[in-house]
Amino acid sequence: MEELRAWRGRIGAELDAVVAFWERHSHDPEYGGFFSCLSRDGSVYDDTKFVWLQGRQIWVYSRLYRTVPRFRRPELLEAARKAGEFLESHVRPEPGSTRAAFALSRDGRPVRLQRSFYSEAFCALGLDELGRAAGEERYRAWARRWAGAMWGWARGAPMELGRPRFSGTPPQQALAQAMMVLKVGLQLWGDPRRDPQNEPEAPEAEAMAEWGAQHVLMHLQRGDSVVLENVSPEGEELPGSLGRLMNPGHALEAAWLLLQLSGRRGDAALGARAVAALLEGPLRRGWDPQHGGLFSFLDADGLCPTQLEWSMKLWWPHAEAMVALLAAQRFQPRPSLVSQFLQVAQYTFDKFRDPEHGEWFGYLNRDGSVALSIKGGPYKGCFHVARALLMCEEMLDAILEGEEPPQ
Amino acid sequence: MEELRAWRGRIGAELDAVVAFWERHSHDPEYGGFFSCLSRDGSVYDDTKFVWLQGRQIWVYSRLYRTVPRFRRPELLEAARKAGEFLESHVRPEPGSTRAAFALSRDGRPVRLQRSFYSEAFCALGLDELGRAAGEERYRAWARRWAGAMWGWARGAPMELGRPRFSGTPPQQALAQAMMVLKVGLQLWGDPRRDPQNEPEAPEAEAMAEWGAQHVLMHLQRGDSVVLENVSPEGEELPGSLGRLMNPGHALEAAWLLLQLSGRRGDAALGARAVAALLEGPLRRGWDPQHGGLFSFLDADGLCPTQLEWSMKLWWPHAEAMVALLAAQRFQPRPSLVSQFLQVAQYTFDKFRDPEHGEWFGYLNRDGSVALSIKGGPYKGCFHVARALLMCEEMLDAILEGEEPPQ
Repeated sequence: MEELRAWRGRIGAELDAVVAFWERHSHDPEYGGFFSCLSRDGSVYDDTKFVWLQGRQIWVYSRLYRTVPRFRRPELLEAARKAGEFLESHVRPEPGSTRAAFALSRDGRPVRLQRSFYSEAFCALGLDELGRAAGEERYRAWARRWAGAMWGWARGAPMELGRPRFSGTPPQQALAQAMMVLKVGLQLWGDPRRDPQNEPEAPEAEAMAEWGAQHVLMHLQRGDSVVLENVSPEGEELPGSLGRLMNPGHALEAAWLLLQLSGRRGDAALGARAVAALLEGPLRRGWDPQHGGLFSFLDADGLCPTQLEWSMKLWWPHAEAMVALLAAQRFQPRPSLVSQFLQVAQYTFDKFRDPEHGEWFGYLNRDGSVALSIKGGPYKGCFHVARALLMCEEMLDAILEGEEPPQ
Repeated sequence: MEELRAWRGRIGAELDAVVAFWERHSHDPEYGGFFSCLSRDGSVYDDTKFVWLQGRQIWVYSRLYRTVPRFRRPELLEAARKAGEFLESHVRPEPGSTRAAFALSRDGRPVRLQRSFYSEAFCALGLDELGRAAGEERYRAWARRWAGAMWGWARGAPMELGRPRFSGTPPQQALAQAMMVLKVGLQLWGDPRRDPQNEPEAPEAEAMAEWGAQHVLMHLQRGDSVVLENVSPEGEELPGSLGRLMNPGHALEAAWLLLQLSGRRGDAALGARAVAALLEGPLRRGWDPQHGGLFSFLDADGLCPTQLEWSMKLWWPHAEAMVALLAAQRFQPRPSLVSQFLQVAQYTFDKFRDPEHGEWFGYLNRDGSVALSIKGGPYKGCFHVARALLMCEEMLDAILEGEEPPQ
C-alpha cells in the first residue's frame, strides 16, 4: 500500500506536468484547435490538424475540467470549446457530408479522408464530454450524430466508407472497431456515479455499448487463450497473417472498457473473463522477456509478424496496461495485480517519460532506447497519457481509501 | 582491383544461392504464380499472392534466363510464364477493369486494390521482360497496355485511381512515381546493347523514360543538396513533414536509372548530376554514422521523421546503393566510389545475408540486429536482392575487363 501511495503522488504530479506541456505548446489561438506535431521540446514541426487528436484533446480537457477540481480552470474549457467549434465548422470533407476528415490544414481545409470511422468516433467522444463539461446540449447532439453514423457503418454499411470489398477478401471484423463502438457507447451512456440523471439517449447508448462488448468478445479465440485482432463476422478464425495478428494494446484497452461495462451491469462473470482473457493473457504473451515492455504486434502461432514495428515499444499500450491493472484490482483485488502494476508503471515512467522537456516519448526501440524523439505526431497527441494518469489517479484514490468498487 | 575481383566471386555465388532459395520455396505448382510470404527457413506463412511481387519475380526469372547463360534453364522461363498467365487471367479487380489489384488469393481472386499505380507498373515490367525472354510479342503487348495506363495516371488522371483530392491538400508529386515511370520507360525501350532491333514502341517508351527523368530531377532541391520525396507539380518545396521527407533508397535507385538514361543519350551532364545529387549526397546524409547502414527516412531539416521505421535498416536501399556505386564507377571511375562500394557491400553481406537458410533478411533494427526474421512478405520477394546481384555481377565483369562504359 505504501508503494501505491507513492505512485499516487507521482501520477498526480505527472498529470499536472503533462497537461501543462500541451497547454503551453499545442494551442492555436488564431484558428482554434490543437497542433499535435510537437518536437521533443514542444515546438511545432508541422501545423496539420489531425482530427483524431482534436477529438481526443477536447475529451481530455473537458473531462479534467468536469471531474478534477484542480483542473476546473476556464482556460481549459475555453480551449476545448474553440476546438469543438473548429471541428464542427470544418471537419466535413465537403458540405453536408456524413464523414469526418482525417486531417485538416491549420485553417480548417480538408486534407485527407480515411476509409474507416475513427475520425467520427473521436469527434463523438470529444464533443459528448465537452457537452457535459460546458453543460451545453448542442455539443452532445453533435456527438450523437457522429456516434450514430459510425455505429451504422460498424453494423453493416462499411461500403459507405469507400472501401471496396472483393471476392477474394474474407468478410472480417476488427477488434479496434468493436472496441471503439463500446468506448463511444459507454461515453454517451454516461457514468452512473457522475451522471445520475435519466438521460433520454441512454437506452441507445447502452445498446451501442452492449453491441460493442459482444463483438469484442468474439475476438477471444482458442478457448480464450488468445485475442485475435481480426475474425470473421461469425467469430471464426481467418487464415494467414491477418487471422493470426494480435495487438496486446488493443486487448488491454478492451479489458478496462469491459470492466466498466461489467460494473454497470453487475455482471461479475463478464468482469472475470475480461481480466483473464484480455488482461492477464495479453500481459503474459505481450511482455518482452528480454528487454521488458509490451510488444506492439504478435502472431498467435509465434511466427514473425509482418508489421515493421512489431517489437517496438509504444507509449499507449503501456498506458492502457496501467489503467487495466488498476481496474482489475478495483474489480477483484489480488496481490499479483498490484505487483504487475508496479512493474509496468516503473518501466513506463523510466522509459517513456521525458523529465527534461515534459510529456512522454511515444516510440521506443525494442531495447527501450528512444526511436522517435517527437512528443506528438499524426497519431500521438494529448490523450492516452493524460487519460491514463487521470484514471489511475482516480482509481488509486479509491483503492487507497478502501472504497467499494463501482458495482 | 583484387578486392573487386573477390567481390565478383562472392556476388556470383550469392546470386546462385538466392535464386535457388526462391525456386525451392516460392513456386505454386497448382495455380501458378509465386508465394512471397516466406519465413526464415522458406516455409510459407501466408499464401496471399502480392501483385508487385508477381511482376517483379517474373522480371528476375526472365532477365536471368535471357541474359545469363548459366540461368538459361527452361524451368525458370516456365515458372515466369505460368506467373504471367496467372497475372493476366486474374489481376483485374473486376472484368474489363484497367486497374491491377494489389493482392490476390492463392487461386487468383482479388483481395485488395491500392489507390496508386505500382501494381500496374510491376505488371508492365515483368511482362515486358517475359516477352523478350520467351520471344513472344503478346506478353509485351500486355506490358504496353499496363504501362500506358500507369503513365496516363502519372501525367494527369490520378483521380481515376480513386483517391479524392481535397482543398487543403497541396497538389504534389512523389519521387517514387516519377522514378517508376522512368523505370518502366527504360524497360520498354530496351537496352540498345542487347536489343538492337528498331522496335515499333521505342519512341513512346523513350518519351516515357524522358518524362520520368525530368520529373525525377524536380525532386533535387536547395541547389541539389537534398532530394525531397514530395514536391509540388511545379517543383517547389511543400510545407511540413511531407515536404521535408527524404528517402535515401529512392534517391539511390533513381541515381542508377538516370545513369542508364545518360548512357543511352550520351548526356554526361545528366550523369554527373545524378552521381553528385542522387548518389553522393544521399549516401553522405543517409549513412548512419553510429551503427553504419542506410536510414530509411530522413527530414531535410534534420528533424525527427514521423515514420516509425525511419532508423531501421532495410535491405533494398543497400542493394540499390551497391548498384548505384558500380554504375557511377562505370560512368566515371574514381577511387572513392570503389571504397564506398566495398564499405556498403561489406555491411550489406555481413548484416542482411542469412548463411544458414539463404536469401537476405529484410528488416534490421538501427543497430543492425534482425528485427523481422521473415525472408519475404507483402513488400519483399524475389526482386531487389537478385536484381542487384545480377547487375553488380555484370558491371564488375565489365570493370574488371576494362570495358568501355555503355555510351
